[in-house]
Amino acid sequence: MKLSQRITHLTEGGSDGWDVFYRARRMIDEGHAVTELTIGEHDIRTDASILEAMDLSARQGHTGYAMVPGTDLLRDTVAARLQTRTGVPTTRNNVLITPGGQSALFAAHVAVCDPGDVGLFIDPYYATYPGTIRGAGATARPIQTSADDAFQPRAQRIDAAADGAVSLLINTPNNPTGVVYSRATLEGVAQVCHARDLWLISDEVYDTQVWDGTHISPRTLPGMTERTLIVGSMSKSHAMTGSRCGWVVGPEEVIAHLINLATHTTYGVPGFIQDAASFALNAGNLLVEEIAAPFRRRRALAMEVLSTQNTVGLVPAQGAMYLMLDIRATGLDGEGFANALLDTHSIAVMPGESFGTAARGHIRVAMTIDDDRFAAALTTICTYAAVLADRRAAE
Amino acid sequence: MKLSQRITHLTEGGSDGWDVFYRARRMIDEGHAVTELTIGEHDIRTDASILEAMDLSARQGHTGYAMVPGTDLLRDTVAARLQTRTGVPTTRNNVLITPGGQSALFAAHVAVCDPGDVGLFIDPYYATYPGTIRGAGATARPIQTSADDAFQPRAQRIDAAADGAVSLLINTPNNPTGVVYSRATLEGVAQVCHARDLWLISDEVYDTQVWDGTHISPRTLPGMTERTLIVGSMSKSHAMTGSRCGWVVGPEEVIAHLINLATHTTYGVPGFIQDAASFALNAGNLLVEEIAAPFRRRRALAMEVLSTQNTVGLVPAQGAMYLMLDIRATGLDGEGFANALLDTHSIAVMPGESFGTAARGHIRVAMTIDDDRFAAALTTICTYAAVLADRRAAE
Repeated sequence: MKLSQRITHLTEGGSDGWDVFYRARRMIDEGHAVTELTIGEHDIRTDASILEAMDLSARQGHTGYAMVPGTDLLRDTVAARLQTRTGVPTTRNNVLITPGGQSALFAAHVAVCDPGDVGLFIDPYYATYPGTIRGAGATARPIQTSADDAFQPRAQRIDAAADGAVSLLINTPNNPTGVVYSRATLEGVAQVCHARDLWLISDEVYDTQVWDGTHISPRTLPGMTERTLIVGSMSKSHAMTGSRCGWVVGPEEVIAHLINLATHTTYGVPGFIQDAASFALNAGNLLVEEIAAPFRRRRALAMEVLSTQNTVGLVPAQGAMYLMLDIRATGLDGEGFANALLDTHSIAVMPGESFGTAARGHIRVAMTIDDDRFAAALTTICTYAAVLADRRAAE
Repeated sequence: MKLSQRITHLTEGGSDGWDVFYRARRMIDEGHAVTELTIGEHDIRTDASILEAMDLSARQGHTGYAMVPGTDLLRDTVAARLQTRTGVPTTRNNVLITPGGQSALFAAHVAVCDPGDVGLFIDPYYATYPGTIRGAGATARPIQTSADDAFQPRAQRIDAAADGAVSLLINTPNNPTGVVYSRATLEGVAQVCHARDLWLISDEVYDTQVWDGTHISPRTLPGMTERTLIVGSMSKSHAMTGSRCGWVVGPEEVIAHLINLATHTTYGVPGFIQDAASFALNAGNLLVEEIAAPFRRRRALAMEVLSTQNTVGLVPAQGAMYLMLDIRATGLDGEGFANALLDTHSIAVMPGESFGTAARGHIRVAMTIDDDRFAAALTTICTYAAVLADRRAAE
């Protein structure tokens, strides 16, 4: 029986740098002690107060179909959050609640891409980006960035790739690099969006995790409110990854169509989860700070450890829960280094090659284990890299 | 800014018979006492024991990313349920857990339809069907059925419409008609699926609500296991409409691709909801019977009320939570009757025209209010229809 071209070509074949991840998983399943620094998941669980709010909502009977666009309360709360953070007037009519950020990414692309269109995205990228664009029927075209330019996307490169494109997907604070896009970067992005009439799909799920500088949403730039779709989520800001609750924020007309799409693809998000999310968002900034604090702490620890050596380079660690380390001095690429590190020291990290081609010769380290083990693992990584670099120099 | 053709053409313009529904909603919002018989939602909430299981799971820490295909426990439970009910060997590798039945319907169509392909569906139909097929990029083509043939789909009509088609979507027990497809019907469907090499997408979300006859899953018919994708859900069987938890069951190869699609469209279903669903499915048949019982009771009540008159006809009420009433004797179409009924008696029902063209001259009555009010409303409908029919005869 024939399957659709779209589903069978969603992801490309061959090694994609995730072998080390699956190998680490197998080692853990077999009982090996592996230091696991691959995945962007908090080492805490969803706060008990949020779970209480969810349970209360469910027991009070919020277990029937919720309104497809989202509850009025959550849509209003998300709108107020965006307006407070960006100054751009935002109402519930600018908000669709989705079952998670991934669902929001997919819906945003379906809204603007037809088959045959090109959707642009920035390399290095979060693993699902190209498949999400292909899932919407479009062609996924990467825009290269450079390690030596701190992986900031440059307008000229976007422009050069924009023939046939209808959308550009960006992510700041960035996974996997930990970089926060500068105002100059975003002004360049906005300028090329205007010049080439592109929708900007702005993944801002890490907007509460900024360690250095300021997160700027491109929706705030002149003329960009009408061409930007923001993707947000409760996952990272409130340690609610498993609750699958996110949103798209954009122009009212787009949201109206996205609600129609949601009716035909998801039929809404559980009301009790939306009530939990509303509670969490209204619980104030202290909770958000508490959830971000461990990453802020570990990032500071990492700066300390890395400052004592010269082998491993650090891409500016400005936000999100990851460090991108430059291990090119070892002579290995990211995959080679990650595999060797797993074999020799039972530390699992993601090769830069898992995220496209731009981060070749790098590894991504998730700051998602307790401080002491994290610092020890980083020290080991640096020492091991130095050994490899010395060995290479001696060859 | 240009939006995609796909999202802007998801649903057709103009009146679609839902005006009466929205008018009833407005009347309720304005404080009018309206007897609401439009929507397929239980008049009970999710059972407290299921909510307890959900809360326990969440408090025990099942709040991080769940496995994208679904938890092993829920996939195994759904597989066992299907195998028990149908005899077809089924394992977790045949199961993808989805955020609700609608999401399963969409995913199943994306798996088999490419842009330009035709997806067939049966008229009358559940409101989202054509938009779901269009959302997958395909052309939605209805197959007519006849009121006088109890809305059973006939192989000859399917065959006549099958040029360019890759899939056929059916639903038994059926919403909106309440009909359960006979073995002869399903054998005809299977035969045309073989002859025209069609995937069969079988929406079986009402499979626990059968009042007369037996639900037969077409997956059990010779040669059909490999070309059938079953859509199921916790919504109707366990009064968990708001929990958004459903599944696709099909051949392993299709499920493997659907897992990849899920990675790029939904990223899984909350683990605590899956644990609640596993609990509910393992709680045994008593709970299922308890949830189905009110509809079984009201369907019997309806047979009684309708047996005392000759104006309003009843399409065989064999399953699901609806009655399809033939009001053609009044001289009105479904929309005219439903509007007049709302105006004169404050009873809201769905015009047959809300579900395509085949159920013109009918109304769908949801059996979702308490028995006494339900019987009274039906009596009123019959009396009012008789008045209209007499008036017509006198003209």
